[in-house]
Amino acid sequence: MHNSALGRAEESRRPQVVVIGGGFGGVRGAKALARADVDVTLVDRTNHHLFQPLLYQVATGILPPGLIAPALRRVVTKERTIRTLLAEVHGMDLERKVVRAVTPTGQTLELPYDYLVVAGGATHAYFGHPQWSQFAPAMKTIDDARMLRSHILGAYELAELATDDAERAARLTFVVVGAGPTGVEITGQLAELARYVLPEDYRSIDTRRARIILLDAGPSVLAPFAPKLQDYTRRRLESMGVEVRLSTTATDIDSESITVTGPTGEERIVARTKIWAAGVQASPLAAMLAKATGTPTDRSGRLAVHPDCSVPGADGVYAIGDMVTTADRLPGVAQVAMQQGTYVGRRIADRVRGDISTPAPFRYSDKGSMATIGARQAVAQVGGVTITGHLAYLLWCYVHVMFLIGWGNRLGTLYDWLRSLHHARNRGHRLINLTGATAVEELPAAA
Amino acid sequence: MHNSALGRAEESRRPQVVVIGGGFGGVRGAKALARADVDVTLVDRTNHHLFQPLLYQVATGILPPGLIAPALRRVVTKERTIRTLLAEVHGMDLERKVVRAVTPTGQTLELPYDYLVVAGGATHAYFGHPQWSQFAPAMKTIDDARMLRSHILGAYELAELATDDAERAARLTFVVVGAGPTGVEITGQLAELARYVLPEDYRSIDTRRARIILLDAGPSVLAPFAPKLQDYTRRRLESMGVEVRLSTTATDIDSESITVTGPTGEERIVARTKIWAAGVQASPLAAMLAKATGTPTDRSGRLAVHPDCSVPGADGVYAIGDMVTTADRLPGVAQVAMQQGTYVGRRIADRVRGDISTPAPFRYSDKGSMATIGARQAVAQVGGVTITGHLAYLLWCYVHVMFLIGWGNRLGTLYDWLRSLHHARNRGHRLINLTGATAVEELPAAA
Repeated sequence: MHNSALGRAEESRRPQVVVIGGGFGGVRGAKALARADVDVTLVDRTNHHLFQPLLYQVATGILPPGLIAPALRRVVTKERTIRTLLAEVHGMDLERKVVRAVTPTGQTLELPYDYLVVAGGATHAYFGHPQWSQFAPAMKTIDDARMLRSHILGAYELAELATDDAERAARLTFVVVGAGPTGVEITGQLAELARYVLPEDYRSIDTRRARIILLDAGPSVLAPFAPKLQDYTRRRLESMGVEVRLSTTATDIDSESITVTGPTGEERIVARTKIWAAGVQASPLAAMLAKATGTPTDRSGRLAVHPDCSVPGADGVYAIGDMVTTADRLPGVAQVAMQQGTYVGRRIADRVRGDISTPAPFRYSDKGSMATIGARQAVAQVGGVTITGHLAYLLWCYVHVMFLIGWGNRLGTLYDWLRSLHHARNRGHRLINLTGATAVEELPAAA
Repeated sequence: MHNSALGRAEESRRPQVVVIGGGFGGVRGAKALARADVDVTLVDRTNHHLFQPLLYQVATGILPPGLIAPALRRVVTKERTIRTLLAEVHGMDLERKVVRAVTPTGQTLELPYDYLVVAGGATHAYFGHPQWSQFAPAMKTIDDARMLRSHILGAYELAELATDDAERAARLTFVVVGAGPTGVEITGQLAELARYVLPEDYRSIDTRRARIILLDAGPSVLAPFAPKLQDYTRRRLESMGVEVRLSTTATDIDSESITVTGPTGEERIVARTKIWAAGVQASPLAAMLAKATGTPTDRSGRLAVHPDCSVPGADGVYAIGDMVTTADRLPGVAQVAMQQGTYVGRRIADRVRGDISTPAPFRYSDKGSMATIGARQAVAQVGGVTITGHLAYLLWCYVHVMFLIGWGNRLGTLYDWLRSLHHARNRGHRLINLTGATAVEELPAAA
């Protein structure tokens, strides 16, 4: 049912903009409309704006979730024309121009729009093996990161309790699938935990003997980076004891092990902890729009939008970020989503003001790429320049802190980083929850 | 089965001490034995040492859980004779002198002891109405606090989405049962959230109109405090808009409401959020020991131990903290558990050294009591001296920060406090999880 208390359209003659998704793209899109003569409704199924690039630091105990996930409504608290609704979008009626969203209590809201920005992001892809997700969890949400933290730190607890060598070895073997930035970053932290953070805390096991394996189907780590940085990264990881296996694919995953095939043939690696950092799949909202408009999607389910991010055949509808693809095949990174959000917000503001000229297409301004490797090392490339080591690490820290929202979170994050760099290298946030570990042994609940 | 890899008794001739519980009492007890000629095994079913007095700050978004719950094994990392095991105690064989504990994977360990310290703490009591726990959650663990945070902050989200006035009012009514220190402290924070933190973030509701009710069966708030401080606290809470109802008891609680009876008769208060801060019940370990030894327990299930905290009829077994009672009826506070832990640890060290003289009984040194009221106000009494207002608040902050374990947690907590006192008064940790809110509407999952 349509709900009049929530339908501002009836009270206001101002054009209504609905933004679906409170991630990088959605928030930039909404903010770009704050001074336009419109009412904006920002809908998200969580109450927070997540800074995904630092999720791996939650999963490894460096940061508490709150610092990288401020309340979404606080992020736009000063923009008085933006209201925030906690609801999940279940459908869009492009004819009637209405978004259908369901609240946590099961109430259906109909949100009328004049302009719609769809910024649903992406989730994991297991390349036709959805059953692997229970054995090799991936990391896209705060709950995922908390669960991985329980899994990773819990593995050491269970190794300490193990009574035979084979079980102990299985608990102390960690396999990361996918050597893109996320895979490399979490692998580096796994190595730091094993070598620097945890050794003194255990009595029966030597955590330094943990086996950490990073594999990728391609011939190099950090595929989109310069070859020089790829080599540097692989050497650094290996110097921290990581086994880097390239041109190697996972062929089977179960609770006890992962089977891989590569240059040396097929091998079953007994490992209780597997982490998936390999594939992405566009939000189901892309398929919804594709079906409604006949617009094609690519292999990863991304919607092929026009150069101005408008959705073909849907009046007033734009789609941005990880759930879309354009002719220039932009990477699925925060920078693209943010720039598209701002671009689309401005486009809508132009149209509201009566500017109906053909817009200049969206153009991505690549500010460079970087990834941490662990042990205060990182790699970065900006334009043609490449940087490695501590300097790249400092640059990485600076850029990531500055992109966090609010000085409270920036200073808090700096504080936790300093803490983890201190000589004891402890992590401040090591909470785990193994409740029900007997039943769902390989997937402890989020803690 | 007994498990030789974990049974150090077989490898070592040193006396074996098992400490059950990694709370205030257990950790002090274990640490007091660090230099004695014994091996100590510290068993806890969680991986962290919880600083319970600050749990209410997790439930209201001020602190992240990690700062008040450091990894237990890190707390005793320097004491090389203490090992930490993540397992839940299911039984004690006082004849064979063995503790039976079950690991998260369901494996049973038998831990032989020469001396045993049982420090299981306490849980909530609902005075014969266990079904109330699902409607009026209490707060004893990190998971409880996360769940309450989802509940409290989620109430505002659902009020913002509400479509009729009655539902909105029900969402914005908060009832706290029990006006001891915990009840007063969480009530103060509920008032701060409603009046100072949240108003700017909402568009449809005025959070300042939230109704916050604190009730207690007794004639005053903060029962064990000086009457002057009780009056001050009640007036301060009322000045923040809290309805304080004394000599008032809960007679029924369901998902929609709480029925109370007091000086003005019976009333059903429609309120979606009820928080239980009323009763405590000793850990089931007290009943286990009572049954095995024939030792009596009191109304709250606390075991009546000897003046030296030894358990009557159980050789080498001590019990301390919230799960015991002594002739001088000490309060169930951290200070008592800590002092008993140190006392018992020293007693065991004496006995191991061959000192079998009759010990001086445990004597509690009362260092005073304090409670925060919110809005930078607190009350404190030290000996006969009472302090109120900002000065008491600063004293409270100092004492609580200093009792946290580790400078990393102390500075981190100070930082989050400064953040919450800043003029915007935002809270850094507002994550909620309303997943499944339709099904278990009144008890969202921990987030």
